[in-house]
Amino acid sequence: MGYSRAAIVGSTGLVGGELLSILEDRAYRLDEVRLFASDRSEGAEQTYRGRRIRVCPVERFDPAGIDVAFFMAGADVSREYVPLARQAGVLSIDNSSAFRMDPGVPLVVPEVNPRATAGHRGLIANPNCTVIQLLAAVYPIHRLSPIRRLVVATYQSMSGAGREALEDLLTETRGCLEGMSSAVAFNLWPGIDRCLEDGYFYEEEKIIEETRKILGSGDLTVSATAVRVPVRRGHSIAVYLETDEEVGLDEAARALREAPGVLFEEDRTDLQALSPVAVAGSDPVRVGRLRRDRFSERGLLLWVVADNVRKGAALNAVQIAELVFGE
Amino acid sequence: MGYSRAAIVGSTGLVGGELLSILEDRAYRLDEVRLFASDRSEGAEQTYRGRRIRVCPVERFDPAGIDVAFFMAGADVSREYVPLARQAGVLSIDNSSAFRMDPGVPLVVPEVNPRATAGHRGLIANPNCTVIQLLAAVYPIHRLSPIRRLVVATYQSMSGAGREALEDLLTETRGCLEGMSSAVAFNLWPGIDRCLEDGYFYEEEKIIEETRKILGSGDLTVSATAVRVPVRRGHSIAVYLETDEEVGLDEAARALREAPGVLFEEDRTDLQALSPVAVAGSDPVRVGRLRRDRFSERGLLLWVVADNVRKGAALNAVQIAELVFGE
Repeated sequence: MGYSRAAIVGSTGLVGGELLSILEDRAYRLDEVRLFASDRSEGAEQTYRGRRIRVCPVERFDPAGIDVAFFMAGADVSREYVPLARQAGVLSIDNSSAFRMDPGVPLVVPEVNPRATAGHRGLIANPNCTVIQLLAAVYPIHRLSPIRRLVVATYQSMSGAGREALEDLLTETRGCLEGMSSAVAFNLWPGIDRCLEDGYFYEEEKIIEETRKILGSGDLTVSATAVRVPVRRGHSIAVYLETDEEVGLDEAARALREAPGVLFEEDRTDLQALSPVAVAGSDPVRVGRLRRDRFSERGLLLWVVADNVRKGAALNAVQIAELVFGE
Repeated sequence: MGYSRAAIVGSTGLVGGELLSILEDRAYRLDEVRLFASDRSEGAEQTYRGRRIRVCPVERFDPAGIDVAFFMAGADVSREYVPLARQAGVLSIDNSSAFRMDPGVPLVVPEVNPRATAGHRGLIANPNCTVIQLLAAVYPIHRLSPIRRLVVATYQSMSGAGREALEDLLTETRGCLEGMSSAVAFNLWPGIDRCLEDGYFYEEEKIIEETRKILGSGDLTVSATAVRVPVRRGHSIAVYLETDEEVGLDEAARALREAPGVLFEEDRTDLQALSPVAVAGSDPVRVGRLRRDRFSERGLLLWVVADNVRKGAALNAVQIAELVFGE
């Protein structure tokens, strides 16, 4: 069991670096890691279990002899290099949006639809960061009674836009405190990724369509507003949901308490425990503020917060590899 | 027309100070302003049209001879001193939550229910900051077809918690950039005010109940999550709404374009124009990201952002005085 040779494409990015560190902790049999990144990382080295590994230019990506390739760069890189890995019979786990909505590609949150990995044809897609934590949180309730409607508003941290955006936030905040004007410091951006024809932003489309694909539920309606907030790490989601039949609050709380990958916050007044700063660097998806809608028996509200770089990306990818190869 | 003598209770706070400055700009006939604040402001002076006015301790509040008293301190202060003003036949405009849900007290957003002021018995309540901007934004659509359901998630700035909280944000952010831990810098607090028995926070209850009172609509259901974000000034709201009958997008846009107090942002890609930094210091409620729900013909989504200290508090109070006395 386990996999002994892996490649990480995009290893020097925020998510790639986190993935390498998670593999150190969890991939017990992994003894060879090949690292690839864009030219900007030329000459870089990264450390894996005390060994220094040189980062190769992605143009030299060669899947020969590896068990699994983690694609942690953008969609363009995945579109170019995933086919090479598939041709070589190497499993690709792709964090980009390139293939997620392809009907032949499993889109997997291990706590939700682990069996979808069985049908993979050399490629499994890692869902959007917000979708991963949203579904890990609502699936325990969905199992009690199918969710028919989701209305979500997100509070997405700057790390979701990558290392440079995160550094810009800190630099601009410093400047702003000295009286300079700033676009991102102490500010919100109510839209993420590009704007589509119908006024939705692409991040919102991903939330809607990936959620429906993973839950496999044509009856499920999803409404989403995606917002960038001046937080460094940790995405949050305000969730309104309606189930097919009434789910008791106690029953929902019990399901969340027992759910894998979820940490249910019992204390209704401990807002700090439900803040992104509290979850940064940790694995579980934290869920709290569970309450009944005041007007709908089938309506529940909750708050979901998780480390977008870990569970929202790198950790979920590693969990997918564990599903396929064993731990 | 107009009023010539006013008192401000809580004049040295963020909202009180803003109110004084708005009166300078708009209350053309106002030639006497009496200022009151807590002991912490002892000895303070504020300026009105070039004159320096000494701030008196609130214990010395005396309504004799004034036309209108603006209560811009907390609910406790209002509970104690509003009755004095009413006994003296002086109109009180109260920004606190003390009397808002009292059936005999009009709760007024001038762009929405101006005629409610007619029934006042010496007291008109200024709604919660979030409610004011929410209703100014959705009322133009409500007039086209009654809103039956609202699901809102808020992004509320630190100025909504007062001057000290705002200063704490800046101080903690400075410390955080130097590596110190922080509770509020680059963080969210997913709840505002105190936690109630059923898991809602009091800010959410205000949004739900005040919205229903002002729209006078027993059929309207409201679901709310209130969140404090590390923004200095300007509250934002992600709004999902359902109308009784389908409202066309063009029709909704036209109504918003023509609505008093609203600035409809036509450019779907200009997120900066819909950011709190862009609205800070300005009067209109900015509305944008108008779009049709992908699954419900009667569902619309939009984004609402306004200066919580101005339209969310001080400006709305001045507008109420103008409704009663004329400009």
